[in-house]
Amino acid sequence: MTDVRSKPLRMALIGGGGAGFIGKVHATAATLDREAVLVAGAFSSDAKRSRQAAAEFGISTDRAYGSWQQLLDAESRRPEDQRVNFLSIATPNFTHCEIACAAMEAGFHVVCDKPMTINLSDAQQMVAAVQQTGRVFALTHNYSGYPLMRQAREMIMSGELGEIIAVRATYVQGWMHGMKPGAHQARGEWKSDPHRNGRAGSLGDVGTHAFHLASFVTGLTPEKLLSSMQSNSDHHQLDDYGHAMIRFSNGSTGMITWSQVTHGRLNDLSVEIDGTRAALTWRQEEPNQLFVRALGKPVHIYERDPTAEHSSPSASAACRLPGGHPEAFFEAFANVYRDAFADMRRVDAGIAFDRSSSLYPSVHDGYAGVRFMTRCLDSNDSNSQWQNW
Amino acid sequence: MTDVRSKPLRMALIGGGGAGFIGKVHATAATLDREAVLVAGAFSSDAKRSRQAAAEFGISTDRAYGSWQQLLDAESRRPEDQRVNFLSIATPNFTHCEIACAAMEAGFHVVCDKPMTINLSDAQQMVAAVQQTGRVFALTHNYSGYPLMRQAREMIMSGELGEIIAVRATYVQGWMHGMKPGAHQARGEWKSDPHRNGRAGSLGDVGTHAFHLASFVTGLTPEKLLSSMQSNSDHHQLDDYGHAMIRFSNGSTGMITWSQVTHGRLNDLSVEIDGTRAALTWRQEEPNQLFVRALGKPVHIYERDPTAEHSSPSASAACRLPGGHPEAFFEAFANVYRDAFADMRRVDAGIAFDRSSSLYPSVHDGYAGVRFMTRCLDSNDSNSQWQNW
Amino acid sequence: MTDVRSKPLRMALIGGGGAGFIGKVHATAATLDREAVLVAGAFSSDAKRSRQAAAEFGISTDRAYGSWQQLLDAESRRPEDQRVNFLSIATPNFTHCEIACAAMEAGFHVVCDKPMTINLSDAQQMVAAVQQTGRVFALTHNYSGYPLMRQAREMIMSGELGEIIAVRATYVQGWMHGMKPGAHQARGEWKSDPHRNGRAGSLGDVGTHAFHLASFVTGLTPEKLLSSMQSNSDHHQLDDYGHAMIRFSNGSTGMITWSQVTHGRLNDLSVEIDGTRAALTWRQEEPNQLFVRALGKPVHIYERDPTAEHSSPSASAACRLPGGHPEAFFEAFANVYRDAFADMRRVDAGIAFDRSSSLYPSVHDGYAGVRFMTRCLDSNDSNSQWQNW
Amino acid sequence: MTDVRSKPLRMALIGGGGAGFIGKVHATAATLDREAVLVAGAFSSDAKRSRQAAAEFGISTDRAYGSWQQLLDAESRRPEDQRVNFLSIATPNFTHCEIACAAMEAGFHVVCDKPMTINLSDAQQMVAAVQQTGRVFALTHNYSGYPLMRQAREMIMSGELGEIIAVRATYVQGWMHGMKPGAHQARGEWKSDPHRNGRAGSLGDVGTHAFHLASFVTGLTPEKLLSSMQSNSDHHQLDDYGHAMIRFSNGSTGMITWSQVTHGRLNDLSVEIDGTRAALTWRQEEPNQLFVRALGKPVHIYERDPTAEHSSPSASAACRLPGGHPEAFFEAFANVYRDAFADMRRVDAGIAFDRSSSLYPSVHDGYAGVRFMTRCLDSNDSNSQWQNW
Repeated sequence: MTDVRSKPLRMALIGGGGAGFIGKVHATAATLDREAVLVAGAFSSDAKRSRQAAAEFGISTDRAYGSWQQLLDAESRRPEDQRVNFLSIATPNFTHCEIACAAMEAGFHVVCDKPMTINLSDAQQMVAAVQQTGRVFALTHNYSGYPLMRQAREMIMSGELGEIIAVRATYVQGWMHGMKPGAHQARGEWKSDPHRNGRAGSLGDVGTHAFHLASFVTGLTPEKLLSSMQSNSDHHQLDDYGHAMIRFSNGSTGMITWSQVTHGRLNDLSVEIDGTRAALTWRQEEPNQLFVRALGKPVHIYERDPTAEHSSPSASAACRLPGGHPEAFFEAFANVYRDAFADMRRVDAGIAFDRSSSLYPSVHDGYAGVRFMTRCLDSNDSNSQWQNW
Repeated sequence: MTDVRSKPLRMALIGGGGAGFIGKVHATAATLDREAVLVAGAFSSDAKRSRQAAAEFGISTDRAYGSWQQLLDAESRRPEDQRVNFLSIATPNFTHCEIACAAMEAGFHVVCDKPMTINLSDAQQMVAAVQQTGRVFALTHNYSGYPLMRQAREMIMSGELGEIIAVRATYVQGWMHGMKPGAHQARGEWKSDPHRNGRAGSLGDVGTHAFHLASFVTGLTPEKLLSSMQSNSDHHQLDDYGHAMIRFSNGSTGMITWSQVTHGRLNDLSVEIDGTRAALTWRQEEPNQLFVRALGKPVHIYERDPTAEHSSPSASAACRLPGGHPEAFFEAFANVYRDAFADMRRVDAGIAFDRSSSLYPSVHDGYAGVRFMTRCLDSNDSNSQWQNW
Repeated sequence: MTDVRSKPLRMALIGGGGAGFIGKVHATAATLDREAVLVAGAFSSDAKRSRQAAAEFGISTDRAYGSWQQLLDAESRRPEDQRVNFLSIATPNFTHCEIACAAMEAGFHVVCDKPMTINLSDAQQMVAAVQQTGRVFALTHNYSGYPLMRQAREMIMSGELGEIIAVRATYVQGWMHGMKPGAHQARGEWKSDPHRNGRAGSLGDVGTHAFHLASFVTGLTPEKLLSSMQSNSDHHQLDDYGHAMIRFSNGSTGMITWSQVTHGRLNDLSVEIDGTRAALTWRQEEPNQLFVRALGKPVHIYERDPTAEHSSPSASAACRLPGGHPEAFFEAFANVYRDAFADMRRVDAGIAFDRSSSLYPSVHDGYAGVRFMTRCLDSNDSNSQWQNW
Repeated sequence: MTDVRSKPLRMALIGGGGAGFIGKVHATAATLDREAVLVAGAFSSDAKRSRQAAAEFGISTDRAYGSWQQLLDAESRRPEDQRVNFLSIATPNFTHCEIACAAMEAGFHVVCDKPMTINLSDAQQMVAAVQQTGRVFALTHNYSGYPLMRQAREMIMSGELGEIIAVRATYVQGWMHGMKPGAHQARGEWKSDPHRNGRAGSLGDVGTHAFHLASFVTGLTPEKLLSSMQSNSDHHQLDDYGHAMIRFSNGSTGMITWSQVTHGRLNDLSVEIDGTRAALTWRQEEPNQLFVRALGKPVHIYERDPTAEHSSPSASAACRLPGGHPEAFFEAFANVYRDAFADMRRVDAGIAFDRSSSLYPSVHDGYAGVRFMTRCLDSNDSNSQWQNW
């Protein structure tokens, strides 16, 4: 193993200067293992606020740009051993496509927040840009970075669960009950503007995470789906609760449930997978335990523990601490980065790599997520009729 | 309070002589509080086996009948102070209607297992029989007998949860993976004969319980629904996994999930109710705890505890033990009986009573359950299209 | 298997007419399986109150006696096929010895509540009475009746845990914080009278249960112990919190903890057993799950499930319901009765039996419990010095 | 708030080049918030191995020293704006005193792993060194860095629990069952050499953590204690299981339990505090939930959630993520660093500060920990007699 941390990758963060927390999460997760250093940013479209954020993020203000365009322009002109290697995009969803495509065309790798974009044509454009530029593109469906979700995937791929019969993935939150009139604006007034944010509300915020995680662990693809959504708030007009019923191409059934109006739930993402030989369940808020059940046997709790017999290679590789020393959100997020870094280093070194063996969410996963949103919205708009995938 | 146990009601059990456990549950639950005594039975359609069962149930063999018709005939001719007061019906579902109607017409009260029957016309006939005879009819949707489900109902009715937004009820088991070829026969060969059992498999076994419990605690009625089911077994042709998506008449969304092919799950019935002011969750396998959540507040666990401040009147009334001394399945089942006994005593004493204030499941609940099964099957048979309620 | 329920045993209850719940528990548990019928009682030393209780318990008032002496006298004179077979004693602890000895000498079997008595000389007298009369004597350390505690015992006896290293048993409640001045009197003024109740407070109420359960599952005997106790209340002078540190004769360490002043805990009895090959934990408030752990392996949850591979014979025999249909306090209590009934029937039929193979707590267990209390009190009174067993 | 991250503190790590994980934890935790940068290290007493580790830690090899003495010497001679600000000591316990004292005398702040040292005279020397040099000294009893442990402390200090009656702290692991003969050597042969490691085995590894956490949240000081320990292994001669019974100076009772031979437990540290008004429990492996109970009220689960009403100021200040996005071991460890950094910046800026308002464990906490170990060992060596504090 070459020692990578002595030559850390240089990171630029786009966004992150506002009230949200996700920009800071990107900065912390990317640098957790000392494989990357944050050196530049376009933290806000307001140049002054961007410079303030630079101080907060601990970077030199002369690399705090007032726009991503300026950043791309200035960084491109820096010497190769100083310019940033990759951009992390934590801006409103409707801006992802333009920024990511421009960045990749300028030669930079990209890590992009989810959902990838707000409509299928943008998503297709991003797929094409990745293919044309050969850059690494990673989408931060961060929950797939948890060691035990990788364990689950590996168990399913190896047949330990038998054939998959049914999948249930649920992501429920309750914070929307606390929104004051006008609060949606504070959170980002673009959020409730369908022209910019598109038509998906909680579906995009949390529903796509649940869909991605179900896809990640099972490898299944929908054949058709049906969705029914609600909007309970006076403060916005987008969905805040919904179900999607899926028929997967192997004949199994999926149910994706999302909510931001389930009182008192914080970030309750869970998956339940039923197979013909065993079944498993996992819950993001207690991420260090995976429950595996089979008829007539004791319930097995697989604890995250890289030295345990039951720990699969991909799960052990995703651990930083011994069992019982809990790992959590930042580490899972950092695993997406760490995997993407490995590919960035390969690309930069001219080494061929096999994308299909990587575990970080790809542009194709991003496309599938946008397709999921689109089909759900189409179904809901047509009295919840079935839609072909 | 008059002392009722000194004059216990006399019970006859129809069914219960086979391998199943539910007949024994009826006998134990009905007599738990010494308000009733089992004195007669038609435990099997095989007269010899019925007499053997009589010994096992601890009753005199001269009141062990070879058929329910003989039982009705013989008991009707006994003196009023000796003849049975009520019949408990634990026979195959397709026989409930005939037995119950005949029993009520002969003047007996009836406690009937669920689902009430296998088609709507039978269900309507039973509704009519109850109305015409004035007899007490109770359906053992036993899970509504848990103190904390009554607490939940009372909290919702009093507005503590605000308006109901969404309901999720799930009942998953896994035992069907253990079925050997031919095992369905052993379990009751009628079970897989659509001519006798009707078209519902797990939908009738467990799905109706989940639907009833959701209805019981929320008081909501469907406006339309859609269902998708699977059959995973080679051993039978009925559903063993399914979802029903419901639009309730108040505009809220319901999702009922049932399974008998979820590996390693035993009897995992749970309900989750989202309201505009609070949300609650409960799980049958840990029945002494009700979780109540509201945004920004600690999660509240309401433990079953009749002396706690938070215990609602109906919950406290349904307890037999102090908090921390766990109560479970038998006691919940017995609560359905105890409530029905109160009405039986009122009817027998010529006292007017208000059915709407009773908590035990009624013939109307039974009718709703059969309607739920019918609409789900109709939907599934029509490519999972929406059906009006 | 002979059918026993057709000839149920006849039970007399001593005590149970007051505010406490334990008398009713005895009546319900003893009759749960229709192996016994409550036919007589001396529910109170106040004859009128005893008759009132008789109505409540559903027995004829002519067998409601004003004292246990009258009961013994009158029942002894009834014909053999009518007189009671056994007495259940649910009176204040200081009365157990006199009643039990007199009952056994009069030829009755005895089921006695715990602690068996309040001092060692009484305990010795009871041991002698059992030996001399040949009557069955069972002590209701009811928690040993839980199927999974029997499973634990069987696993330990068969060596699945290896050698036992350490034992931790804890029984914590919090109700004493709710006591009003004078409330101790309402609960039974004898409770705080050392001349009658002896010197043990919570030690006798709950500490002895924890000690018995630890002994039951491990089979270990103390060699020496040390105890430290507190009394936090203004309302009484007995211990309400304590620890006992034990050195068992096999060299292992035990820690027994008891409390009735741990706010908000209801009836939280738990055991943790560490062996050289595996460890297990169990908690009374979630009695249907036993956790078994071994280094490097998944945590195993053994659910109470009589048809599961892992269910030991004694555990399966103690179940009444399929897995997932929770069993709880009454059923565990009833298991003590059911086992004692088997011995009563053997004794009454003149069949030799092997007490050592019975699982219900014996007079020797009762003696050990009194010894435990005595040694703890001796230690606490001597500045918490070590005491030989 | 001045922006600190733009001028990060410079860190040197002593130790961390071996097989253990704790050195890496120091490096990650200290830099998590970009308030510090690792720039130098004496990772091993083997100069070559130290340089290898430097590459792994991502620092320049010219600041990888072959001994801590060389590091102090070389760094002291660097210009003030380049030399390290503080040393993190992750070497064997018996070396802490010499290194820390020399570092502080050379003008560096110190962060030191626990236990602080192996005997009281060393501990006293360290207390004196801190007082004489005026340097910041922090001990990484990292579990006190969890937000909900700070919440617990704040609740207790403000009287929400009333007077403290009893404290139970338990830290159980099971990994020692996996030790092969000679493995203790691999882990660090000094570990089983009493001349170097002192007399404490698991007592020092985990027992001191439990004792510190109990002290941290309650503020209580022992008056006397008694301890009993076991050694179950053939591979070493130190304790691997033990209890300490404490009488605190306010009259309350404490029980500290530690084990490294409880099969299948990973890192199971828990605390239970009983007060006269409420009680709380917390478990390190599920660190985002604090259970608060009071008689007759629902159990309250305080989830880590900086925006919740119930979140105390110190708890909210210790959070980096919204509720439901779990935080864990690294973040708690980082909180100790973050608090120490604030004091380092104050000292370096010549600003007076009040150590008593800081939450990171101090040299006095370290001294108390060594005293706890010493008294436990004294007690165990004297047939578990009571020892004055």
